[in-house]
Amino acid sequence: MSDNHNLAKELLPEPTLRRLPWYLAYVSLLKSKEVEYVSSTQIAKELNVDASQIAKDLSFLSVKGKTRIGYKVDLLERELQNFLGFKKGHNAVIVGVGSLGAALIQDSGLSHYGLNIVAGFDVNPEIIGQEMCNVPIYDISELEKKRKKLRAEIGIITVPVESAQDVADLMIASGIKALWNFTPFRIRVAAEDVVIQNTSIYSHLAVMYNRLGVKLRQTQ
Amino acid sequence: MSDNHNLAKELLPEPTLRRLPWYLAYVSLLKSKEVEYVSSTQIAKELNVDASQIAKDLSFLSVKGKTRIGYKVDLLERELQNFLGFKKGHNAVIVGVGSLGAALIQDSGLSHYGLNIVAGFDVNPEIIGQEMCNVPIYDISELEKKRKKLRAEIGIITVPVESAQDVADLMIASGIKALWNFTPFRIRVAAEDVVIQNTSIYSHLAVMYNRLGVKLRQTQ
Repeated sequence: MSDNHNLAKELLPEPTLRRLPWYLAYVSLLKSKEVEYVSSTQIAKELNVDASQIAKDLSFLSVKGKTRIGYKVDLLERELQNFLGFKKGHNAVIVGVGSLGAALIQDSGLSHYGLNIVAGFDVNPEIIGQEMCNVPIYDISELEKKRKKLRAEIGIITVPVESAQDVADLMIASGIKALWNFTPFRIRVAAEDVVIQNTSIYSHLAVMYNRLGVKLRQTQ
Repeated sequence: MSDNHNLAKELLPEPTLRRLPWYLAYVSLLKSKEVEYVSSTQIAKELNVDASQIAKDLSFLSVKGKTRIGYKVDLLERELQNFLGFKKGHNAVIVGVGSLGAALIQDSGLSHYGLNIVAGFDVNPEIIGQEMCNVPIYDISELEKKRKKLRAEIGIITVPVESAQDVADLMIASGIKALWNFTPFRIRVAAEDVVIQNTSIYSHLAVMYNRLGVKLRQTQ
């Protein structure tokens, strides 16, 4: 029973994992407004998600709501933050300190979600040896040594498409366990124990342009 | 027949729209290596996508492959870029020039995908009136006037969660037709002719942390 529960917890479906941060955002908003309790019906109404879906998603957490009152806002916030790993610091290195890489280093929002970028790596001699928002930029050849010293398990890839696979291979060889790939290139890994998360913000542009074009033609 | 084809083109499924930029990335890589032809089998092998899926996705484009030879690389690249709207300039305004907003303004990658951020808006008097990478930052009260003048149809939302809905409402009132929402808040819109694209990079962190935790426990 307990083992089954742990397994279910571990194999959390991706859609649930993507929705939980929405609930967290809303619950944090309520907390800032000093609201004490929130029901899944309320969250459902506010976020346009089915109430039964929300109850199901929240059932993965150990927090329990009270009938007719709902969840205690501060407890739910804390539980969501812990459950999602946002309160635990995760060390990450970033390879490719160009435009997007520099942007991510400067985005302090990431640290609020538990991600600490502890070093950047590049091949450009003009930025190697520099610091950016207190993050040192090293030569890519130092990746393995520095990664071990800094105990980073996450590797962020913000290099040009043609270098994405090579950088991923380097990262895995250096001991990185999770790749956060911002390039539109589909990285392949041989090692089964490496996690890949693709975040292609430019792909979202393609979807938006298409939908926008259709809407504009419809209203013409 | 022609109408049906246009409708099919317009109602392009989101998964297809998200995959097409992957193909583009790979095809551009081939072009930089001066490769002349590519088959869907080759793309499939390289990107870990089913070959029949690729052929189906590419059938939305007007480019045709030759039996046993495949697609001409430069034609396919151009066709994908045009089809996805990456070659057409789309003017966008951004509200919330904090950490993530500033990062996006500085990310020149966006302009390579057809997105021109033409103005930023904020409530912080310390940055209002400044410029960032040649993008002027205005007071949020000037949104409607400036948007019209700059002919921006896309609004990027990078404000704190608690302001996301208000900013979305303001943007729509000012004539914005597509919202690119980077906050984890689920924005609601009354107007049917407004497109919403949610890009919650922090949600991806939740998925990655979970998968990483499971992997690390498995290998312990």
